[in-house]
Amino acid sequence: MTKGRFISFEGGEGMGKSTQARLLAKFLEGRGLKAVLTREPGGTPGAEAIRQLLLHPPGEGWEAEAEALLFAAARSDHVARLIRPAIQEGSWVICDRYLDSSRAYQGRAGQLGDAAVRQLHAIGSHGLLPDATIVLSASADHVQERLRARDGDETDAIGGRDDSYHLAVNSAFEAFASEEPDRFRIIDGEGTVEEVHQRVLAALSPMLPEARP
Amino acid sequence: MTKGRFISFEGGEGMGKSTQARLLAKFLEGRGLKAVLTREPGGTPGAEAIRQLLLHPPGEGWEAEAEALLFAAARSDHVARLIRPAIQEGSWVICDRYLDSSRAYQGRAGQLGDAAVRQLHAIGSHGLLPDATIVLSASADHVQERLRARDGDETDAIGGRDDSYHLAVNSAFEAFASEEPDRFRIIDGEGTVEEVHQRVLAALSPMLPEARP
Repeated sequence: MTKGRFISFEGGEGMGKSTQARLLAKFLEGRGLKAVLTREPGGTPGAEAIRQLLLHPPGEGWEAEAEALLFAAARSDHVARLIRPAIQEGSWVICDRYLDSSRAYQGRAGQLGDAAVRQLHAIGSHGLLPDATIVLSASADHVQERLRARDGDETDAIGGRDDSYHLAVNSAFEAFASEEPDRFRIIDGEGTVEEVHQRVLAALSPMLPEARP
Repeated sequence: MTKGRFISFEGGEGMGKSTQARLLAKFLEGRGLKAVLTREPGGTPGAEAIRQLLLHPPGEGWEAEAEALLFAAARSDHVARLIRPAIQEGSWVICDRYLDSSRAYQGRAGQLGDAAVRQLHAIGSHGLLPDATIVLSASADHVQERLRARDGDETDAIGGRDDSYHLAVNSAFEAFASEEPDRFRIIDGEGTVEEVHQRVLAALSPMLPEARP
């Protein structure tokens, strides 16, 4: 049995990450591979319970430190109970958001610092990184347009921040990609769903198995 | 306004920590001081919600890593929203369990390691330590007798471990005390509630304000 692969999708709000993750999983299944589609925060019963605390904080909301610890706790459960076992069993794990979201949201925009977020990941999940991370990116104008179109759509504690916060997050992903060019693939997120899907496949093509004749 | 003090109570299950913490708070109020009695995990709405996840884990229960992150998240909220503000306002904060419980339970008995637990505390709560930590201690025989007396009393995820686990925790507190003798006061936990209370007051006497004439 071959070892599986681990692919994460990252990018700001409303970039189509969930849709693209689903299309990739479907594509892999079409190639005869076992694909596990999951998301963060969440993916296991424990992590989904923590997700509820993050989205609907009791009391006055979470400070950056507590929020980062909760994300790391959810990720720890997700990695131990779902991601690692699935990779070991030979599956491709496709995850909608992962560590780099914590780095971008709590580490940079939330100003906890990248070193602290990585330290939490080292302790909680033994530092597991994806084989490839797809960042869906777009121009600042495009991001603002998408955010306006989603207004009122979702007012939870994560989605409901202002434009400058989301733009800072977007530029954080681009900075991470320049630091780790082997892991990251920045994909133009503008265009139709199918156009973006084809760009994702092209970016992953060296890793993908050949279609069976 | 003078700065307050921060006192934690530690020790294994069934040693009478909650009772002694309450008696100390009452004593301080009798001396005209403002005392805030609190506990971990918990003490704020956010931390109490995390406490529920710890005591009643969804799914298969928490691995040591996720558990340590959840304790650190609860502590972070507790420190930021209750402990630090109360100390700043001049109160004496009396806390039933604090960081050293995480060190003893997740760090040692749970085998995550002391350095990792301290690192989480540095990130989550800027490393805040009590001015004094009272450890209620007893002989191994006494601990086993108390645990047997409590059988069936509480079967949650923290209380419901075997005797060797609790004995390991007890010896962990003694090891911490020998590493940091200035912060820790080991108190003989055998005897009546009033006898133990008098030992606590004697141990804290250099910090305590004089009775008003």
